[in-house]
Amino acid sequence: MSDIPPLRLLISCPDRPGIVAAVSRFLHEAGANIVRSDQYSTDPREGRFFLRMEFTLAQQARAGLAQRFAHHVAQRFQMSWRLWDGADRKRVAILVSRYDHCLQDLLWRWRRGELEAEIVTVASNWEDLRAAVSAFELPYHHIPVTPERKPRAEQQLLELLRGNCDLVVLARYMQILSAEFLERLGVPVINIHHSFLPAFAGAGPYEQAHARGVKLIGATAHYVTAELDAGPIIEQDVTRVSHAHGVTQLTRMGAEIERTVLARAVRWHCQDRVLRHGNTTVVF
Amino acid sequence: MSDIPPLRLLISCPDRPGIVAAVSRFLHEAGANIVRSDQYSTDPREGRFFLRMEFTLAQQARAGLAQRFAHHVAQRFQMSWRLWDGADRKRVAILVSRYDHCLQDLLWRWRRGELEAEIVTVASNWEDLRAAVSAFELPYHHIPVTPERKPRAEQQLLELLRGNCDLVVLARYMQILSAEFLERLGVPVINIHHSFLPAFAGAGPYEQAHARGVKLIGATAHYVTAELDAGPIIEQDVTRVSHAHGVTQLTRMGAEIERTVLARAVRWHCQDRVLRHGNTTVVF
Amino acid sequence: MSDIPPLRLLISCPDRPGIVAAVSRFLHEAGANIVRSDQYSTDPREGRFFLRMEFTLAQQARAGLAQRFAHHVAQRFQMSWRLWDGADRKRVAILVSRYDHCLQDLLWRWRRGELEAEIVTVASNWEDLRAAVSAFELPYHHIPVTPERKPRAEQQLLELLRGNCDLVVLARYMQILSAEFLERLGVPVINIHHSFLPAFAGAGPYEQAHARGVKLIGATAHYVTAELDAGPIIEQDVTRVSHAHGVTQLTRMGAEIERTVLARAVRWHCQDRVLRHGNTTVVF
Amino acid sequence: MSDIPPLRLLISCPDRPGIVAAVSRFLHEAGANIVRSDQYSTDPREGRFFLRMEFTLAQQARAGLAQRFAHHVAQRFQMSWRLWDGADRKRVAILVSRYDHCLQDLLWRWRRGELEAEIVTVASNWEDLRAAVSAFELPYHHIPVTPERKPRAEQQLLELLRGNCDLVVLARYMQILSAEFLERLGVPVINIHHSFLPAFAGAGPYEQAHARGVKLIGATAHYVTAELDAGPIIEQDVTRVSHAHGVTQLTRMGAEIERTVLARAVRWHCQDRVLRHGNTTVVF
Repeated sequence: MSDIPPLRLLISCPDRPGIVAAVSRFLHEAGANIVRSDQYSTDPREGRFFLRMEFTLAQQARAGLAQRFAHHVAQRFQMSWRLWDGADRKRVAILVSRYDHCLQDLLWRWRRGELEAEIVTVASNWEDLRAAVSAFELPYHHIPVTPERKPRAEQQLLELLRGNCDLVVLARYMQILSAEFLERLGVPVINIHHSFLPAFAGAGPYEQAHARGVKLIGATAHYVTAELDAGPIIEQDVTRVSHAHGVTQLTRMGAEIERTVLARAVRWHCQDRVLRHGNTTVVF
Repeated sequence: MSDIPPLRLLISCPDRPGIVAAVSRFLHEAGANIVRSDQYSTDPREGRFFLRMEFTLAQQARAGLAQRFAHHVAQRFQMSWRLWDGADRKRVAILVSRYDHCLQDLLWRWRRGELEAEIVTVASNWEDLRAAVSAFELPYHHIPVTPERKPRAEQQLLELLRGNCDLVVLARYMQILSAEFLERLGVPVINIHHSFLPAFAGAGPYEQAHARGVKLIGATAHYVTAELDAGPIIEQDVTRVSHAHGVTQLTRMGAEIERTVLARAVRWHCQDRVLRHGNTTVVF
Repeated sequence: MSDIPPLRLLISCPDRPGIVAAVSRFLHEAGANIVRSDQYSTDPREGRFFLRMEFTLAQQARAGLAQRFAHHVAQRFQMSWRLWDGADRKRVAILVSRYDHCLQDLLWRWRRGELEAEIVTVASNWEDLRAAVSAFELPYHHIPVTPERKPRAEQQLLELLRGNCDLVVLARYMQILSAEFLERLGVPVINIHHSFLPAFAGAGPYEQAHARGVKLIGATAHYVTAELDAGPIIEQDVTRVSHAHGVTQLTRMGAEIERTVLARAVRWHCQDRVLRHGNTTVVF
Repeated sequence: MSDIPPLRLLISCPDRPGIVAAVSRFLHEAGANIVRSDQYSTDPREGRFFLRMEFTLAQQARAGLAQRFAHHVAQRFQMSWRLWDGADRKRVAILVSRYDHCLQDLLWRWRRGELEAEIVTVASNWEDLRAAVSAFELPYHHIPVTPERKPRAEQQLLELLRGNCDLVVLARYMQILSAEFLERLGVPVINIHHSFLPAFAGAGPYEQAHARGVKLIGATAHYVTAELDAGPIIEQDVTRVSHAHGVTQLTRMGAEIERTVLARAVRWHCQDRVLRHGNTTVVF
């Protein structure tokens, strides 16, 4: 049993006394051993409660676990919840345009086993990165996007992605996805924005940063929503810059931050460590 | 009930299934509401398990809680445990020599309510800082230390401190405390060492750092043990330096890190967030 | 000669060949020894050139130096320039409202000799911090500000400050200074803003940061211009936060960054290491 | 002239007045335009002076420049000096064992043009990474090392490297190079050590760090000398860890720091920004 990846239980519900007791008692009686537990309440009195538990459980004891949990615990506390098997790696599709640093970093970490996910496909509105992707023995789909064929392109993307992945990652994909596309896609989408949001949203953030004379530049990984650059933030980081760095250097230095921040966000998401809470995230 | 500071339960015991379930059930049945929970196991199979729970509990429901916990839960799991009332602030004594930056920082944060502790006394082997301490309306004890009167000085310190404080902080106290003193003192002692331990243990760490040409300098807050600069590390941090910084500048820059790191360690300790594990710490 | 603080020459001019050669030759022939030199050009062909040189020069060789430099070098290269004597510490006035952390930090560093400046006076629109300031044997001027008496208050501030200081520091002064006031004041004003500008400009930045769910919070020290929170940035820094930090904790954690960033900006300014370049700064 | 990479002049000599004036006058009269200048003195009176200047100079004006500099300037000030043409990229050979993260990172940055160097060959005591290297169309030399054939292996390495590269990088090469080898090699060797030196020198630094319970782990890039892990440090960085990170996770997290720190050190060296000063470095 010891080498089986743990199961992960994610819960959010109105906070009230007895939640941890009820969940941990249920798991204990089911034969599970809790190996990690994180919780957060926006307010112990009237707030919302978030819980993530990792537990080991012998294969033969897993049958019917989710149904029993729903019946005996989840209903009573009005829980939104989900049970993930750590052995089922999430299937990840990557969309990219022409900058390769985020893509390469994800592919490389994937091959090293760092992502705890399976990358299954890459699509791009350009041909440029086909060879780089093929070197990892992954399919590469060229789906051009022009103003007039954008609806057609989104339709092609939907056919490619829907039902075939659990997460879509925009690894510097320089196209805005429509609200309708996001809704029909039905899985989370993570984007990397090349600034410390909410500063410098929109186009040309390094140009904006240079013009404003900031002393740090950053990157932001966030879930994509219909509103551009405004979705829930998963992770951010920054690096120090000076007056001596031009836009070219900011872009090079920023690329380091972008790939690091995006990789963290994707790994955390695939480890089921990120819970959405309105337009923010709880990261355990 | 809502404005009463939570109680804190700290546990370490051999890891085995059912610990979280047993503790959270006990607390729930006692009428408590768990508002924060952290756990760590060195190994779910044969390791050691550490748990810290914060919970609120009405004053009238607290009578006999510890006894019942001992009887119903702690014995069964062979727990080392302790129950703290967040309303009982730890009494802190500070020992200092002549550098005032760590002392001043602690006094200032104390007055601002950041430490979650009560500073009760300051002792020094020098007279220098009496005025600085008196400005905070705290007693200042001058206990000189010379090689020949060291046993006498430790005796005076013991008379001053024993039974009167829950924690002793060495805020740049440039004297080595004997193993016998530490044993008789009977409360934890936190020291700030002005290097990134284990690098540059012993005297003159900034001189050593300069000679070695390191590109970062740091500070380490640790529990004091009989072995110099080798006790369990609570917190460390660093700052970037360059060839252009001489020993004087390293000392000034290091002072920033020292006071920050020491304040964090003292606050975390006083929040009962630090558990010792052999010669290391678990910091929740 | 060796213990005399160096002189500092600050230059900006259109970039063209020969500037460094001309300046260093002039200084050498004047008997000076250059101990530090920094330069930056926005573009070696048509850009603007910035130079800062520190040099030692015997007292008896200093007479007429500035006039000769103007005549022999500065005119030829159309230089904006200024010569400062490192021995002449800048006189600093501090404006503050009720938060004391930035004020206390500046006073403390001043007493420790870290600022390389002389704090000469403190003014506030509240009475609250009089005792804290008096402990440092500094005058404290209470100049209340209400909407109707704002022009009167600015007039009082001008009478207090004009001609009596070389720099005004807003150490959490929660009043907007009018463009007319800034112009009549005639010395630089440094403000600390409690966010990573340009994110969260305006009021309540920690509330804004919490609502947006950012993973880092920061502070920005900048020169004050007539446009609120939009002046040239001198220094910024950030610290990591999580979903678990409420506005109160963000405020406490942010206070650490604010005081650190403001102290750096003030010290650098007083060391003549900050040159303005349009709405940005060159920091040597 | 504007797109020609600048020349770089590196100087170290006993400090005395007039050095900057003499060098900048010489360059100006030679028709050069200084675009960047950095200097450092260990002590303006009796110390050692370090200078690095970048300057542009038309191709036709370069003939005889070095000879004239030697004759007119360098001799007078007893300079150790070197003139590099920024257009001549340094030839870099990489030695590696089985861990690929530092190697991959260097290869990738090289292809992206970030290193400002030419990687010319890779050698390893293992076969494992041949495919990874071949993907970059670089030669891969497998030179096994066992205790008995170590002298033979070093001889093979010398034949491969001597005269064919300007820098050797040990990208996690798990073999100790003999003092004789280093001397006969005749070019600098940069190593990445997986700890914050001088802490945890020698074998198994992550195991050592875990046992000591440090709260930060780091990596150090340094020039290799005959004394193991004791050569001049070029760059260091750290990342925060906690009690919850086992050796495996420390190793994964450390790999990020290792590759970042090594890439910085190699780039700075290849930009001629690193000057050795005894057992330390000056990094401009």
